[in-house]
Amino acid sequence: MTVETTVRAAAAAAREAGRTLAAAPPADRDRALAALAGRLRDPQVRRRLLDANRRDVEDAEREVAAGRMSEALVARLALTEAKLDGLADAVDTLAAMPDPLDRVDLRRELDEGLVLERATVPLGVLGVVFESRPDALVQIGALCLRSGNAVLLKGGREAARSNAALVDELRAALGQADLPPAAVVNLPDRAAFAALLDASDLVDLVVARGSSAFVAHVRASTKIPVVGHAAGICHVVLYDPCPPAMAARIVEDAKCSYPAACNAVETLLWTPGTQPALAAVIERLTSRGVRCRGCPKTRAVFAGLEAATDADWDAEYGDLVLSIRAVADLDEALAHVARHGSGHTEAIVTDDDAAAERFLRSVDAAGVFHNASTRFADGYRYGLGAEIGISTGKLHARGPVGIEGLLSRTWRLRGRGHVASDYGPGKRAFTHCDLPADGDERP
Amino acid sequence: MTVETTVRAAAAAAREAGRTLAAAPPADRDRALAALAGRLRDPQVRRRLLDANRRDVEDAEREVAAGRMSEALVARLALTEAKLDGLADAVDTLAAMPDPLDRVDLRRELDEGLVLERATVPLGVLGVVFESRPDALVQIGALCLRSGNAVLLKGGREAARSNAALVDELRAALGQADLPPAAVVNLPDRAAFAALLDASDLVDLVVARGSSAFVAHVRASTKIPVVGHAAGICHVVLYDPCPPAMAARIVEDAKCSYPAACNAVETLLWTPGTQPALAAVIERLTSRGVRCRGCPKTRAVFAGLEAATDADWDAEYGDLVLSIRAVADLDEALAHVARHGSGHTEAIVTDDDAAAERFLRSVDAAGVFHNASTRFADGYRYGLGAEIGISTGKLHARGPVGIEGLLSRTWRLRGRGHVASDYGPGKRAFTHCDLPADGDERP
Repeated sequence: MTVETTVRAAAAAAREAGRTLAAAPPADRDRALAALAGRLRDPQVRRRLLDANRRDVEDAEREVAAGRMSEALVARLALTEAKLDGLADAVDTLAAMPDPLDRVDLRRELDEGLVLERATVPLGVLGVVFESRPDALVQIGALCLRSGNAVLLKGGREAARSNAALVDELRAALGQADLPPAAVVNLPDRAAFAALLDASDLVDLVVARGSSAFVAHVRASTKIPVVGHAAGICHVVLYDPCPPAMAARIVEDAKCSYPAACNAVETLLWTPGTQPALAAVIERLTSRGVRCRGCPKTRAVFAGLEAATDADWDAEYGDLVLSIRAVADLDEALAHVARHGSGHTEAIVTDDDAAAERFLRSVDAAGVFHNASTRFADGYRYGLGAEIGISTGKLHARGPVGIEGLLSRTWRLRGRGHVASDYGPGKRAFTHCDLPADGDERP
Repeated sequence: MTVETTVRAAAAAAREAGRTLAAAPPADRDRALAALAGRLRDPQVRRRLLDANRRDVEDAEREVAAGRMSEALVARLALTEAKLDGLADAVDTLAAMPDPLDRVDLRRELDEGLVLERATVPLGVLGVVFESRPDALVQIGALCLRSGNAVLLKGGREAARSNAALVDELRAALGQADLPPAAVVNLPDRAAFAALLDASDLVDLVVARGSSAFVAHVRASTKIPVVGHAAGICHVVLYDPCPPAMAARIVEDAKCSYPAACNAVETLLWTPGTQPALAAVIERLTSRGVRCRGCPKTRAVFAGLEAATDADWDAEYGDLVLSIRAVADLDEALAHVARHGSGHTEAIVTDDDAAAERFLRSVDAAGVFHNASTRFADGYRYGLGAEIGISTGKLHARGPVGIEGLLSRTWRLRGRGHVASDYGPGKRAFTHCDLPADGDERP
């Protein structure tokens, strides 16, 4: 069997299993999640998981010794009892959540005895490709289970044994709840993932996590819709009056707390009057090892900076580098952000609330922040529960994607023999009378 | 100037104008819509519109005389005083609607002084290609205006003069409300529309209306996301007990009231015990000139029918033809629909409510109906106000697409200098306390 045949067969079986998963009563999905949390706490299961993970880590450490891998990656790869505790707790939280399926968000009488409703349904089959952290696999798998979606998972190569072992646990948990294990599939390698990207008739959505270049590559390789971030060129604007201490704290956090993250800042813009704040920012960043590159006007004031070139305004450094540009006013700042921003997250630091509100309403991005670090752009920080990815697209899901982004809706109509040709000018008229939807009963 | 340069310039200007349109207070968009309704009722404007339309109709009548066009198309092309009255009324309805922008559907305190909100924003710039009816142009343009989107419109070639005249009115109405007319653009021909499909950096969404083949062609020609229907292979299932009179009425309406519509039925499935209902359906359809093609089991009972081939189960006839297949039970009907349906609209006719509920919950389609004609799948009939198109995709918008499908959301965060690195294990914890969102104040 070719890899294409194997993957297509697995995807077709996942689609079928997903239908069963979605049609099952909510209690079954609750039980599967509870079973998963239980397994993640079970000593025997833990031994298997930690054994598989240890072998991945040993291989990775050899790579580190050979200078082919970073220590940081090994730390992310390693599973621990504490990480498994955290994962089990997160799965418990999802198990306790109200079931998100079959929520009727619109109910409308079209005419006597003819009632329309719009209800949430799963998307169907997802393909998810993610970085080396094996704990991401559990979070993604549990989100899919909660939302009734089948999923084919492709994790980092370095975590191959850990991923296979974790998928076994997800499948076993489904089996414990009498749900079909085939709804969760481990894709072992790149060839299998490539075959999945070709199966546009069997997969409803691809979620791509990783570098912007990788997401762009996935997007270019498939006809399946892809949720992911295009790029993370985020700006912070200093606008007068701008308290220097606040500016330094926010830009330090936005640049230094995780420079490789897509929500890290790449370019700082400053308006006249914010020179003291800019000085505080540069001093703080320099002390943290950040290289600052300035435009000519910025360097006229801060002579020690490297010179920024035009390419800097479109660069996602993912590193301890920051470009700095002077702008004449808020309009020029907005124009720069509109031209060079990637629609991810943009922030303004100022005590001028009116200017901040104008910024919040004028910038076209997934996140627009006032006096807060761009690093808050994250599903966990937003309180969405687990996050399956982040989207810079404007359609379907924008910003951090939680369970809501894994749902579609269907329109159900119940009649008593109603036909459309009875309605129209001079004939019957629709009543279009809204009825209570789910959640409308609150006091 | 090449057509590419012209169209790119118009799209860039539309994007800029769209920003102004979206940032304007709701009252400005109300005024523009009121101005449009007023213009559509103004005798002088009407003379211009009807003159332009008369010339389109005269050309079309020559085509009809030459046998190159159908009478039906001329009827759809022709504007009348009555049609203009209807359009003005529809625009008035949109003007009276609550503004859909900047609705906060989620508001959450993340920590003291750090408040997140998610608010509706326009998508930005739309490209819409639609059939020959010039009245569609007004509906689409008014929907875009109400939702703060800029739009580039490409109507049918036969309506070229009417479309140009109507876009002039939309632009004049924007001007009357001190909004930029550049937000609405008429694309005069196919070359201009092709250039638009290439401008993926300037256009956020393409809405394609027309035949399935045309929508597929548009989808294959652009990197811009396309909303449209893939195909309209709709089924009606007769399930025992199935009242013959209701079955005949529903299938007649679903097949005959507008056979070319994407929500018309193409295949009838019948389960054991529904033979009397099937007989009533065949008798009614035959009297309406429908050609019925049966599977061997169906023809064993109704000998006069043409024979259906395998190709019939995947055919969208768009004509007075219906394929009929006997299925053993509901499972076989569901399997047939899953395999051959296009995810548009599927209906069951039965007095067995339990079977109907199973059908409503098992079929994966934009619309699933019980005892009602598939022809109800329509934005106007659903009470969505105007409809910009219909989507068989599962992402973003599904089924008839009204204003909601023209909106995205942005996450706004207001802090007092908050940084993300203050939070985490052993540090500050998020409060994640939901606050009232817009519309939550109802009693």
